Amino acid sequence: MADKYIKVQAISGFGEYLPGEQIAFDKMRSLIEQVYRRYGFSPLETPAVERWEILTAKGGIERQIYSVGKPESMDSSQIELGLRFDLTVPLARFVAQYAGALTFPFRRYQIQPVWRGERPQQGRFRQFYQADIDIIGSGDLDPIYEAEILCVINDAFDSMEGVPEIKIHVSNRKILTGLCVDFGIAARAGELLREVDKAQRDGNRAVIAAIGEMLGQDEPTGFRETLEQLLDAVGSGLEELTELLEGRTQALDGVEELREVYEAAVKLGVPANRLVLDPTIARGLDYYTGTVYETFVQGYDKWGSICSGGRYDDLAGYFTTQRYPGVGVSIGLTRLVDLLMKNGMLETGRKSTADVLVTMQDRDRFLDRYLEIARGLRSAGVNTEVFPEDRRLMKQLGYGGRIGIPLAVIAGGDEFERGVAKVKNLETREEREIRLEELTEGIRGMLREKTQGV
Amino acid sequence: MADKYIKVQAISGFGEYLPGEQIAFDKMRSLIEQVYRRYGFSPLETPAVERWEILTAKGGIERQIYSVGKPESMDSSQIELGLRFDLTVPLARFVAQYAGALTFPFRRYQIQPVWRGERPQQGRFRQFYQADIDIIGSGDLDPIYEAEILCVINDAFDSMEGVPEIKIHVSNRKILTGLCVDFGIAARAGELLREVDKAQRDGNRAVIAAIGEMLGQDEPTGFRETLEQLLDAVGSGLEELTELLEGRTQALDGVEELREVYEAAVKLGVPANRLVLDPTIARGLDYYTGTVYETFVQGYDKWGSICSGGRYDDLAGYFTTQRYPGVGVSIGLTRLVDLLMKNGMLETGRKSTADVLVTMQDRDRFLDRYLEIARGLRSAGVNTEVFPEDRRLMKQLGYGGRIGIPLAVIAGGDEFERGVAKVKNLETREEREIRLEELTEGIRGMLREKTQGV
Repeated sequence: MADKYIKVQAISGFGEYLPGEQIAFDKMRSLIEQVYRRYGFSPLETPAVERWEILTAKGGIERQIYSVGKPESMDSSQIELGLRFDLTVPLARFVAQYAGALTFPFRRYQIQPVWRGERPQQGRFRQFYQADIDIIGSGDLDPIYEAEILCVINDAFDSMEGVPEIKIHVSNRKILTGLCVDFGIAARAGELLREVDKAQRDGNRAVIAAIGEMLGQDEPTGFRETLEQLLDAVGSGLEELTELLEGRTQALDGVEELREVYEAAVKLGVPANRLVLDPTIARGLDYYTGTVYETFVQGYDKWGSICSGGRYDDLAGYFTTQRYPGVGVSIGLTRLVDLLMKNGMLETGRKSTADVLVTMQDRDRFLDRYLEIARGLRSAGVNTEVFPEDRRLMKQLGYGGRIGIPLAVIAGGDEFERGVAKVKNLETREEREIRLEELTEGIRGMLREKTQGV
Repeated sequence: MADKYIKVQAISGFGEYLPGEQIAFDKMRSLIEQVYRRYGFSPLETPAVERWEILTAKGGIERQIYSVGKPESMDSSQIELGLRFDLTVPLARFVAQYAGALTFPFRRYQIQPVWRGERPQQGRFRQFYQADIDIIGSGDLDPIYEAEILCVINDAFDSMEGVPEIKIHVSNRKILTGLCVDFGIAARAGELLREVDKAQRDGNRAVIAAIGEMLGQDEPTGFRETLEQLLDAVGSGLEELTELLEGRTQALDGVEELREVYEAAVKLGVPANRLVLDPTIARGLDYYTGTVYETFVQGYDKWGSICSGGRYDDLAGYFTTQRYPGVGVSIGLTRLVDLLMKNGMLETGRKSTADVLVTMQDRDRFLDRYLEIARGLRSAGVNTEVFPEDRRLMKQLGYGGRIGIPLAVIAGGDEFERGVAKVKNLETREEREIRLEELTEGIRGMLREKTQGV
């Protein structure tokens, strides 16, 4: 008999939430979405699958991509498919494909899951949500957008209750690539930046040592010292960076660009103490060409960056001759929610979307009245559930309490005769009697008090 | 050179929307979600992939399932995966897996894409959204929920502007299965109902003929005549059905259950003229055991049902001994949106989420002021985009108009000196001058006028 039933169990790395957690996740997602829309970004969704050759155009990630096999029922078409591993490749493909129908600058947000064959660990999943924004120009794109993105990130995290203070680390990739030019090793810039990108994980000392080994006899005099000073300059001011790089004209160009973005962001309302100038931010991908961002929750650096991105000069270079420069960031939504949940910073006790539970006594006599109450509440925009079974009142209230419904309406023969209903706060146990014709208004008032924490 | 670029093209059956269409889709999704929440349903999301043995537990659909292959990087685990083809199988698995952590009746909604290897055609896609609700009991479930579901469907479609009148066809599967019992052919009920399910597509005559052939010599006297009268009784009243089935006691039990649900639904506020009693609704799946629903947009029957479901007695029978009866429906969201878009019934001209475009003149002098205006609007909840490049005003307004932003703020040296800004309605070309300190209020007023169609 035992094997009559198919065993149900989780698939490692593919998380799912219980109702209270899902409600908390949805709230975070919707807060982010609201801020994205506040800045006029338009929604985009792309299919979960892309052609294999699109996903692998850039290379380097093939080994992490889930392939998707055609169902038996389908003709033997030659298209090979895979699940997307980020939202940038689909965006590049989308822009190249529909450029003629889009208006540039194209401001899009996209909040969807992606899939990667990674080893699941703290903050890493095989299916996880990203919440991306990008502003794409056709041909060119004003640098002021690089400051606007900082402003959006700042507002997004400001909108979230319960999230500890964040720090947005910002740099400009031209500081490091410029430094390589200044020292005559421009050709090594790519590998060097990939090495610097490990600084957060491995520490500056280890990175400097690795770079010494990497360059060997090619290492220009004074290069390592300058680089080390630069990497140690995390959190310093623009003046210090300028001083430190005196005479390194290419690197200083990068500092100047960083200054422009930094000053504009502060003007746009980003608190200066939330911005950290951080020359170690290299972003491993060659793709980025200017400003780069990474964001950390204070006290939780080990979880890694929860919002990263930057400026790039050529979004869709694998797909079209047309140049689409852009700037964007991606909030690691699943990682962020995981961090907050695991550290008890997200309220998950509310397991129902209902604000009110209408309880029932003597259904045969009063069903119509209960349904009428529910209809009135719903048409006033109050989420309402009716407990439609004629069980003991304690049992009904217990159900409402367990799933976190804030208020219950209680009325029987006596109350209806007197034209009233009781409204019980299932958390505080406080009970009020309200006249039926004022019930909706009364309940809205009690819900308002509750959200205001009165 | 030509093959330096990877060709970008659509994958048949995997649709995606341009910004104006996506905004329209999102609005429909959010209206449905709002109604689901109004009735206290809780959100659920499950991973895109499920174990192959879960997906194929019931059989019959294997040939349409997309398999998912593990990335190269992953160890050779023996788990086989596929993309979900509906939201019911994941729900059944979820309930069996987490029953101990759930409170019953468990009311969940789930709005996610599913994947099927079907031939793409009108209303059929390979990736499409479903918007499901279900109420699951543990052990038993009150039949009144079957009426509540009708009420939710009714409210959901009521909330959508621009959707033509719908008709909800409702029946009870026990009418047909009971009829088989009454005629002593209970064992044939399953195949017979699958045949009746084709009535909408093939017509009653063809179905009756096929059933005659199917039963052959086993056909009881009078069976075909009764069945034919029954199938022809679409849209008739409960009394006619009762009369027609006189003496067929089992079938009449089904009619009585239907009466109960119908009358409760009307009490709950569903307009009687929107409900069609339709004994041809059999729903091919054996899974359903009581009330069944299908919903059609009037004048667009050819698109098929856009919202179907019913009552079932055993949700998770493949996974657990515990009985979970339930009732639910699924709105075919992608199909519905496709129907509305293809027939010009959905507004898709709004390609931006921004309500206001702040234009710019003489950026070097006034940048701060433009950014201040934008900040004020945003913190008042007005979605605002700043056109941050110092281009010709006509060009800026042209951009705003093209992506459907309703209002533009226009101010230069002259306006700032007088402490005012112009606000232009980009559709009507109407222009107002508003004092800067009243700008946010003025703009909110203009936006309200617009939504009220003034």
